[in-house]
Amino acid sequence: MSPTLSSQLTVSGPIDLSGYDSRATTGFDGKKADAKKALARLGDELGDLQEKLFAAGRTGSRSTRVLVVLQGMDTSGKGGIVRHVAGLADPQGLAITSFKSPTPAELKHDFLWRVRKALPEPGMIGIFDRSHYEDVLIGRVRELASPQELERRYDAINAFEQKFTDSGGVLVKCFLHITKDDQKDRLAARLDDPTKYWKYSPGDLDERELWSDYQEAYEIALERCGEAAPWHLVPSGRKWYRNWAVATLLLEQLRALDLDWPAPDFDVAAEKKRLARM
Amino acid sequence: MSPTLSSQLTVSGPIDLSGYDSRATTGFDGKKADAKKALARLGDELGDLQEKLFAAGRTGSRSTRVLVVLQGMDTSGKGGIVRHVAGLADPQGLAITSFKSPTPAELKHDFLWRVRKALPEPGMIGIFDRSHYEDVLIGRVRELASPQELERRYDAINAFEQKFTDSGGVLVKCFLHITKDDQKDRLAARLDDPTKYWKYSPGDLDERELWSDYQEAYEIALERCGEAAPWHLVPSGRKWYRNWAVATLLLEQLRALDLDWPAPDFDVAAEKKRLARM
Repeated sequence: MSPTLSSQLTVSGPIDLSGYDSRATTGFDGKKADAKKALARLGDELGDLQEKLFAAGRTGSRSTRVLVVLQGMDTSGKGGIVRHVAGLADPQGLAITSFKSPTPAELKHDFLWRVRKALPEPGMIGIFDRSHYEDVLIGRVRELASPQELERRYDAINAFEQKFTDSGGVLVKCFLHITKDDQKDRLAARLDDPTKYWKYSPGDLDERELWSDYQEAYEIALERCGEAAPWHLVPSGRKWYRNWAVATLLLEQLRALDLDWPAPDFDVAAEKKRLARM
Repeated sequence: MSPTLSSQLTVSGPIDLSGYDSRATTGFDGKKADAKKALARLGDELGDLQEKLFAAGRTGSRSTRVLVVLQGMDTSGKGGIVRHVAGLADPQGLAITSFKSPTPAELKHDFLWRVRKALPEPGMIGIFDRSHYEDVLIGRVRELASPQELERRYDAINAFEQKFTDSGGVLVKCFLHITKDDQKDRLAARLDDPTKYWKYSPGDLDERELWSDYQEAYEIALERCGEAAPWHLVPSGRKWYRNWAVATLLLEQLRALDLDWPAPDFDVAAEKKRLARM
């Protein structure tokens, strides 16, 4: 039996991001064209398992829920994964949250307050496009929090994630790894294409100037916050691999849940008779 | 130029639902296999227009938002439309709300309170699987509201919808029309298939016993609440037609918006130079 992709992409302990190839295709045996076909096949199985998960949530037969956390530098492909991977699933069973700068109302609460509210209900697959990790990433790089508060947050994140997994939550944490050069190419592509201007903001370059600070903040977050659920480092220099990999990580978790159709909580024969008379 | 599907399916004035064929294929020239192909083609255009709508919302260049309201008897296909029609779109730009029985907290407020909170943001396509109309449907049939309160609600709905459309909202209201026999077949299919038991509840038959009351309540709601945006009666005895029709109704509205990519609000050449140096 081949090792799971999850085990191959999991990172733990001290991490040096510069040592990872963003264009690796770990666990995938093939090229771009094969990946698109493979993704479509994964989609069929994903759709089937998602419906079983949704059915379990709807009938209350189990309280399992799944949360995919997407983190990565600008242009690493968080939006692309929502489109191409989440797009394989039934929108009815998806809960997508895109976290922006906190509003004044959100800032009045602890950083996890808005995250708790966005957790998926039983039966749902939640997708976080950015997440509570921003509070130890931009929070650290832009010094929005004191060193003491940052220390508290790593622990608070671990406790929060542990509580989620203890209560039937399944976490799939993906760090979409690109290099500074990958980002340059993608930002240039946005500036070259009027249909992509809307994805660009001059603020993107302000953040880019702090590239190495962000890499360091990611290294710390990945090392400190793998207790309740592991971090996956997803090489994201090739979009087709990145999409296949995240779909596969999600699918592996769904498979491991041993989902089945809920048993009826009513008398099937009696209901058939009743319907026949109506 | 052929008439829009919207104009062909719009109903107004007093309505007798028993006069409508649930298996009609109004506006579609072809058979089941053709409809599947046609739906995939619509999906490409839908995806393109949805991205432009989303871009406009993201950049703030316009405040347009779209809301598809799905109403119909059990098994009429509200969930199927979310899967097959909304599934054509990028999940990032969708906001799907499935309205259940109001919670005690919701019951403390006016019936439109929870609906207002669920309205799509600019750039988004909202889908309501059931809606504020339940409050004049089950509300009427089950006598959950007084006759005076029901009267007030029709007017309140018209005012609410008018306010939404006045503020850049586009409403696509779809009544999924099936017959009592259509429903019998579909409920029987659910009771014959263990993978569909979860969609069934004995309460479905309690509602079915009130079929003619519900038809009457729909007739009144469709007649009374077409002021701000018309009701479409979508023949839904054939699932493939129903899916094609709702996708087409949505697409016609998106086309009419004359969407385009937002102009950049930054100096493209200056940003290119800045990026080149980094």
